[in-house]
Amino acid sequence: MIQPVPLEKSPRLLNPGPTVLVSSAHGEKINVMAASWSMTLDFQPPKVAVVIESSSRTRELVDASGSFALNIPTRGLADLVLKVGNNSGKDLDKFKEFDIPYFQASKVKAPLIEGCVGWLECKVIQEPHNQKEYDLFIGEVVAAWADDRAFNNGHWIQMPKELNTLHYIAGGVFFVAGEMLEVK
Amino acid sequence: MIQPVPLEKSPRLLNPGPTVLVSSAHGEKINVMAASWSMTLDFQPPKVAVVIESSSRTRELVDASGSFALNIPTRGLADLVLKVGNNSGKDLDKFKEFDIPYFQASKVKAPLIEGCVGWLECKVIQEPHNQKEYDLFIGEVVAAWADDRAFNNGHWIQMPKELNTLHYIAGGVFFVAGEMLEVK
Repeated sequence: MIQPVPLEKSPRLLNPGPTVLVSSAHGEKINVMAASWSMTLDFQPPKVAVVIESSSRTRELVDASGSFALNIPTRGLADLVLKVGNNSGKDLDKFKEFDIPYFQASKVKAPLIEGCVGWLECKVIQEPHNQKEYDLFIGEVVAAWADDRAFNNGHWIQMPKELNTLHYIAGGVFFVAGEMLEVK
Repeated sequence: MIQPVPLEKSPRLLNPGPTVLVSSAHGEKINVMAASWSMTLDFQPPKVAVVIESSSRTRELVDASGSFALNIPTRGLADLVLKVGNNSGKDLDKFKEFDIPYFQASKVKAPLIEGCVGWLECKVIQEPHNQKEYDLFIGEVVAAWADDRAFNNGHWIQMPKELNTLHYIAGGVFFVAGEMLEVK
């Protein structure tokens, strides 16, 4: 059910503004954090922007590897999103501690989290000023994937309720986006 | 029903990733465009990031005024969001053509669009490289407002259905975010 997404359609995965999981890897270390501060930056070539705090383990791994992945979690992963958001990879191995299943990406080393509906593999475009001043990372999307029950033929579609995306509010609370509205 | 939002809570307005209307003004000219590419960048001081295409009328007005506002539209404004997204302020006066009601902001000249549930008044932090290379604008939030039926006491709350926010997919299609999910 996981299908490749053409690169030129990949920014659409982030258009609705879902909360994402940022995964990263370097050497033997892997990590994942939650982020509500991400967005598409461009279609051609596809680029994304995401805020990665300077003191985080993710930052170390992204700095060292020059890459990361954005994973788009579903309603069913809300508990996991909160756990990886509330804990630091400096204190524990989140993948072991929370028993997070993942699979290999195609173009970067960052693990892709199972149960998500979209995945963007990204290589960092080095912008040291943005990184230092704003914790802002810009990535070029080099591969993308989607669960075809939620995103097919380059479009989000009406997905089964359990695949609805999460949109972070604060604390342990999210909006869930499921209903589709079409303007004629 | 429109209440001021404390600046330190204002980034939460964008946390769920709603589609926004970017309004701007300079001299006698006002304009508004739709954007699904925006995000919070920081809490303290509160900052946002938004992509404003170089050939747009909005870009001219933001460049000239050094400010803009982000307006968070609701389900009821989906038709308007599409109209202002599909037309250029270079071709027509969108406020007149689409009869868009608005009110005055407190700290910037950009008009605030009636019927929205949140408003962020922003002053541009000049980052010429980002603007030129990525059409990326960073703004400091200098005032913020919310409809207290949707966002109260610094939190999004369960709002009436007609105030649900929009999350752009593509074409004329949006996800609507309404259902709240709390992880215990």
